[in-house]
Amino acid sequence: MKVVTIGGGSSYTPELVEGFIKRYDELPIRELWLVDVEEGKEKLEIVGALARRMVKKASVDMEIHLTLDRQKALINADFVTTQLRVGQLDARIQDERIPLKYGMIGQETNGAGGLFKGLRTIPVLLKIAEEIHEVCPNAWLINFTNPAGMVTEALLRYGKHSKVVGFCNLPVHMTNSIASLLQIEKEDVHIEFAGLNHLVYGLHVYAKGKEVTQEVIRRLSDPKSQVTMRNIAPIPWQPDFLEALGVILCPYHRYYYKTKEILAEELLAFQSGTTRAEAVKALEAELFELYKNPNLEMKPPQLEKRGGAYYSDAACNLISSIHNDKGDIQTLNVKNNGAISSFPNESAVEVNCVVTKQGPVPLAVGELPVEVNGLVQQIKSFERVGAEAAVTGSYEKALVALSINPLVPSDELAKSVLDELLQAHREYLPAFFKEVNA
Amino acid sequence: MKVVTIGGGSSYTPELVEGFIKRYDELPIRELWLVDVEEGKEKLEIVGALARRMVKKASVDMEIHLTLDRQKALINADFVTTQLRVGQLDARIQDERIPLKYGMIGQETNGAGGLFKGLRTIPVLLKIAEEIHEVCPNAWLINFTNPAGMVTEALLRYGKHSKVVGFCNLPVHMTNSIASLLQIEKEDVHIEFAGLNHLVYGLHVYAKGKEVTQEVIRRLSDPKSQVTMRNIAPIPWQPDFLEALGVILCPYHRYYYKTKEILAEELLAFQSGTTRAEAVKALEAELFELYKNPNLEMKPPQLEKRGGAYYSDAACNLISSIHNDKGDIQTLNVKNNGAISSFPNESAVEVNCVVTKQGPVPLAVGELPVEVNGLVQQIKSFERVGAEAAVTGSYEKALVALSINPLVPSDELAKSVLDELLQAHREYLPAFFKEVNA
Amino acid sequence: MKVVTIGGGSSYTPELVEGFIKRYDELPIRELWLVDVEEGKEKLEIVGALARRMVKKASVDMEIHLTLDRQKALINADFVTTQLRVGQLDARIQDERIPLKYGMIGQETNGAGGLFKGLRTIPVLLKIAEEIHEVCPNAWLINFTNPAGMVTEALLRYGKHSKVVGFCNLPVHMTNSIASLLQIEKEDVHIEFAGLNHLVYGLHVYAKGKEVTQEVIRRLSDPKSQVTMRNIAPIPWQPDFLEALGVILCPYHRYYYKTKEILAEELLAFQSGTTRAEAVKALEAELFELYKNPNLEMKPPQLEKRGGAYYSDAACNLISSIHNDKGDIQTLNVKNNGAISSFPNESAVEVNCVVTKQGPVPLAVGELPVEVNGLVQQIKSFERVGAEAAVTGSYEKALVALSINPLVPSDELAKSVLDELLQAHREYLPAFFKEVNA
Amino acid sequence: MKVVTIGGGSSYTPELVEGFIKRYDELPIRELWLVDVEEGKEKLEIVGALARRMVKKASVDMEIHLTLDRQKALINADFVTTQLRVGQLDARIQDERIPLKYGMIGQETNGAGGLFKGLRTIPVLLKIAEEIHEVCPNAWLINFTNPAGMVTEALLRYGKHSKVVGFCNLPVHMTNSIASLLQIEKEDVHIEFAGLNHLVYGLHVYAKGKEVTQEVIRRLSDPKSQVTMRNIAPIPWQPDFLEALGVILCPYHRYYYKTKEILAEELLAFQSGTTRAEAVKALEAELFELYKNPNLEMKPPQLEKRGGAYYSDAACNLISSIHNDKGDIQTLNVKNNGAISSFPNESAVEVNCVVTKQGPVPLAVGELPVEVNGLVQQIKSFERVGAEAAVTGSYEKALVALSINPLVPSDELAKSVLDELLQAHREYLPAFFKEVNA
Repeated sequence: MKVVTIGGGSSYTPELVEGFIKRYDELPIRELWLVDVEEGKEKLEIVGALARRMVKKASVDMEIHLTLDRQKALINADFVTTQLRVGQLDARIQDERIPLKYGMIGQETNGAGGLFKGLRTIPVLLKIAEEIHEVCPNAWLINFTNPAGMVTEALLRYGKHSKVVGFCNLPVHMTNSIASLLQIEKEDVHIEFAGLNHLVYGLHVYAKGKEVTQEVIRRLSDPKSQVTMRNIAPIPWQPDFLEALGVILCPYHRYYYKTKEILAEELLAFQSGTTRAEAVKALEAELFELYKNPNLEMKPPQLEKRGGAYYSDAACNLISSIHNDKGDIQTLNVKNNGAISSFPNESAVEVNCVVTKQGPVPLAVGELPVEVNGLVQQIKSFERVGAEAAVTGSYEKALVALSINPLVPSDELAKSVLDELLQAHREYLPAFFKEVNA
Repeated sequence: MKVVTIGGGSSYTPELVEGFIKRYDELPIRELWLVDVEEGKEKLEIVGALARRMVKKASVDMEIHLTLDRQKALINADFVTTQLRVGQLDARIQDERIPLKYGMIGQETNGAGGLFKGLRTIPVLLKIAEEIHEVCPNAWLINFTNPAGMVTEALLRYGKHSKVVGFCNLPVHMTNSIASLLQIEKEDVHIEFAGLNHLVYGLHVYAKGKEVTQEVIRRLSDPKSQVTMRNIAPIPWQPDFLEALGVILCPYHRYYYKTKEILAEELLAFQSGTTRAEAVKALEAELFELYKNPNLEMKPPQLEKRGGAYYSDAACNLISSIHNDKGDIQTLNVKNNGAISSFPNESAVEVNCVVTKQGPVPLAVGELPVEVNGLVQQIKSFERVGAEAAVTGSYEKALVALSINPLVPSDELAKSVLDELLQAHREYLPAFFKEVNA
Repeated sequence: MKVVTIGGGSSYTPELVEGFIKRYDELPIRELWLVDVEEGKEKLEIVGALARRMVKKASVDMEIHLTLDRQKALINADFVTTQLRVGQLDARIQDERIPLKYGMIGQETNGAGGLFKGLRTIPVLLKIAEEIHEVCPNAWLINFTNPAGMVTEALLRYGKHSKVVGFCNLPVHMTNSIASLLQIEKEDVHIEFAGLNHLVYGLHVYAKGKEVTQEVIRRLSDPKSQVTMRNIAPIPWQPDFLEALGVILCPYHRYYYKTKEILAEELLAFQSGTTRAEAVKALEAELFELYKNPNLEMKPPQLEKRGGAYYSDAACNLISSIHNDKGDIQTLNVKNNGAISSFPNESAVEVNCVVTKQGPVPLAVGELPVEVNGLVQQIKSFERVGAEAAVTGSYEKALVALSINPLVPSDELAKSVLDELLQAHREYLPAFFKEVNA
Repeated sequence: MKVVTIGGGSSYTPELVEGFIKRYDELPIRELWLVDVEEGKEKLEIVGALARRMVKKASVDMEIHLTLDRQKALINADFVTTQLRVGQLDARIQDERIPLKYGMIGQETNGAGGLFKGLRTIPVLLKIAEEIHEVCPNAWLINFTNPAGMVTEALLRYGKHSKVVGFCNLPVHMTNSIASLLQIEKEDVHIEFAGLNHLVYGLHVYAKGKEVTQEVIRRLSDPKSQVTMRNIAPIPWQPDFLEALGVILCPYHRYYYKTKEILAEELLAFQSGTTRAEAVKALEAELFELYKNPNLEMKPPQLEKRGGAYYSDAACNLISSIHNDKGDIQTLNVKNNGAISSFPNESAVEVNCVVTKQGPVPLAVGELPVEVNGLVQQIKSFERVGAEAAVTGSYEKALVALSINPLVPSDELAKSVLDELLQAHREYLPAFFKEVNA
């Protein structure tokens, strides 16, 4: 069994390696190939060395290969995971700061920042999908790269390879947090998730098979019990709103239902030079210092601050369920195929899936509650137009995607921020600057 | 032939009467009943007297009846038009000023103001529909009352009477404005409209049968050629956005694609006490002074400033097309019935319809362009939840409707503005204050 | 204005010419090109000479051109009508007799016969559509060739040219017959038609704007008042069934709801050598004898026996409505585009359309009544698989199309009749006999 | 834990009891209540006594209760299974023989016989659902009574109780048969099923996670390897048809794709007085003789001839999966909820479901292959109209249901057979004979 991790030099890799080691009995990965690009070579070597020490310490029979040669790595792969970051963290800083400069939310997967991360990432992922299709057509492509919704949409509509899953740790994180709230085991909590990546709703919550949705909502209405991620301020929900809505929100919903409050927080960080990207960049520097330590033989606890908790567990679970034909339920980004009525069968949605050797199959949700259908449809429009812009390099489509995004308050601002971001990311957007390159 | 106009004391009535007089040959209305409520009695008498002078001057055989007894008026009616304003213009002033106080758009048919106009209006319209169903079941109910989208949604989903059309002069206004731009006759312009009331898109424009959509968009990109209504500032569209979007926008789209600019304008008016409602109130006072003049025998030219141009022509055309089985195409608010794919068959949409004796039948549109589908879905969610709030008097539904509206930037603000508007309109919202009234 | 009629040597052509002459004022066709293939040359010349005498007699300025050179004929065409018959009437005799030999219905547009007429016709029509797209891309292709449903499906899904309408005189015929039943003018009858070609239902009937569906059904329940076509025996409907169904049936529905009775009739004709095709062949021979008469200057009354009544009027109306931007309602085979919910947007359906210069736009029907939805879906499956078989020359798809047809009582019989029909029509099915030809 | 089996006197009951005994560890049923009606009292006592001997022999702690008092039995029930037969086997004999008399297929769940079993059964099931809703609202109603498709449709659309599953052993039977064909364990075979009850297709077959659909089809094309049920003659499929169709058929599909052959077989049985119902009646008499033997302490091997193999295993599995929150995949009749696109969300479909404590949730299938969509739609139309007839007692709806059924070759025959069956079953159809009873 062979796994290839593209973007292998990521600071998250030790978590993934830890996950594989822990599950070695059920998931005997003989080869783990960490692939990166030239500019990530140093990080790749640091992370790779740590990975080797971890494997050695654990005494498992897993070879760690490091390479910049992606095509070679893909030969005979069973699973390919992608966790790359085109333009590294510096690009993310631009994605956050430039929109904020114009008074609108700057974020990695939402609004203008999300669009640009998509524009940079999608062509690379489509290329990888094409290579997989040629080199290892039976391999599953499991994409962790954000914006996972738009990227999965692009892979499903424009990609050559159909064995594709978009993966995010958010539903696992929410399930675990709600288990904590209820003071029960996470295995005993089951949530019916439906929506899009980073815009997923918990329609029903069950504890040991009994519906407890209303109780969970009541607890989440308590300002002290906010479920959130490291990268999103835990601003409390308006309790009456939460109860009236009747479904569980994900932390990212704050961008849409608390736009004003989130923007205020972000503008403070913008002024002090401590946007999330800037914080993460500092954190990453620290992490890599730690990783360099030749005595470190395990994932350091400091990694947790980086966010992405449960990411390792969840990702390994997905791979293991496919490999072992488990038939358990996981929340994944897949082709809708009718799971959510009134969304196109071809579009990506994030829903509960049964995962077997044939990959994930979504459970039928029916109509989304009317209260949430509108926003999900709007973000899906944004994702579809954004994906089309990424594939075609169309300035027009990019401008439309931005103007229809609910976090962008004006067509004029859309154009200004688009033009500035295009210049800032010029080198990572060859499709948009064809004349220049030709 | 008998027409009943509920809200007959409206300043618009002379325009309607003029329209009926002009078309008397094809539409021989023998009785026009103007109905109003006690608090509108004075206006009703002023307008009614003017209407009688107009009819007399035109020498047509049309009786004008004035009454506060709605049930009596409905007996044997062929058409019932509704143009009422629950709470009069003072309520509209609140709808505009209270949201603005909280820094969000205050407007008659959009955002918080639109919701509250709906909450006040829908129960009254449903009652009227019930009375029609009992007293004159063959009559058509033609609703002009705003928010016409949410009101038609409510009439279709919760109403007892199925012969219902929602009517708005906006598509006619856009067609005429585009004819002017192209310097051709309005009869030679045909626009494929689709969307919702006050959120309608022109998907294709034809001049004498030839598609000219791109040319029209180019002309509309010129800041000096903005199509708008009296009540919306003609802030120019970002030209690249308009071309990239590729469809014709309606003036109200500015609330969504130019939120920032529109809000800035409104806040200025708010501070100077000259919001649209305040301006209209002054205008109406002037108009009624004019109407009182016993020598006035026609619609005074000043009425045009009030807005609502072409309203008369368009409304009379609708009645005439049904009465005369004309089979022409008009843009109306009707049951979707599949016309726009991926919207519920039961929902109200604003689309081109063929109008015959059987009433309007929508033309099939297929899918909306992905670029605009998201926003339309979002406003449809708002309309549906808003309509449900109006029918049930549910505080929770009203809070959700407001929080999911894209013009409301925060759940906390949604609650604040909801609470203040509920108090302000308390007397017109009996369903929300049942305990108190009981 | 130039019209090209492919299959111009058809016995129907005089009817078409008569229609053009009658409407010359509103539809001034300067050139009518009659195109045919080598084997139809003699008929073309006979019909063409008659057409010239008719035009001369009527003193209209319309040139009649006769040619075997299709591409030349298409230059500058405004409308192209197709009424060709691949394999002539002898092929139709096989389509009828071979299925009957196996004890199943043999008919021109239904069951095995319908499939084979489709298999022979569709490749030719797709080629014509391609030529039109290249030579005269603004021309409308109006197809009269049967099976019009399957052919239009193929043109819409696989064709290069999008300005395509499928046309059948059946809805006009039904409207006129019902007008006779009601003893009112046909202009005063309006029927809401929906379904597929030769499987169209009248959902509601209006007389002068008043619904009279129940009354019409009651009259149609009378065995003496059967609406039918020349080619279908007027076997009366079971009256209780007709009333219970609650919609108007077309004559071809007898194949599905009276399979047993129709089959019995056909088997009699089969034994006596007087199937419809055989009768038509004799009739055509007579007609062409008449057409040869150099003194004949008009459509002879004997043509009526041939069937196809109102065909001329209806076809000319369609062309005139497009040309003159009339905006009237006609029942046509067009892209569904949501008109009938739960059918694919891309499929052909036969529904009421508004016809303007932009061509026909279907009126939204919503869901078909559940009582009829099943059969329509089944025939649509047959049409789609049949069209795919025609395009690909796939034996497998042809076998499936036949086996799923409700008039084919067994998979074994399906194979037998398929094999025999394939051999019988070998020369007209090049896609199915590629190896042999190569 | 308490299970109530309505129709407890059925000859199948020993199988069910065996299943419960075998699974007692995971499914500790303390009380099994067997309920029947007065006319089934004798059988109930015979079966009940055998059940008690079986339980005693197995030394499990399960009380067997026998009663005619349904309401009492339902108190505190966790699961209610229904396997009743209104009118007993004599009614089934009529369902088979009367249609055959008119030359059309007579069968328990298809065509005219299926309709009448539905008409008799549905009102009884709806009454049971109502009682459950009142007496034990948390219980699951698991219906085995045929026609399970139409019955589940009725329970979902018209029933008071929403915790409803329709169950059939056919998918389990097919899976096991295909496992035998492939000579692998049944646990290693996974089939993607979709369709309706007794009209279910295997869209894809996997063996140990590898797709083997084509191989299975090839094996099923062998006339010696027919998968069928005891009640359907194993007439081989036309091999080319089976391969061309590309999906796995169920035995009942023979009624539609081999109508002619099946009808011929049935007519032979009709003439010799050995229709399936007649054979079953003889078999049942033998079985009950065996059951009476006070020394019999287990399910006798002769029961297998009765058909319904795996029924016990499968039914117990369903109950156990719900009870134990297993999350395994089973093929069940449930509310579609979008699982099969282009079928109503509200309709019953038979699809793969994940079964947990919340009951079954269907997996999204997307569109059915176009080749099979038509027939499934047609039978769904039949089921919906039939269910409506059963609920309303409408002669008209029953006549329409019959006339649109593809096994009924004529509207005239539909009426004849309807009238004769109505008279034959008069006492079991109170809704149809209201005036008489009143």
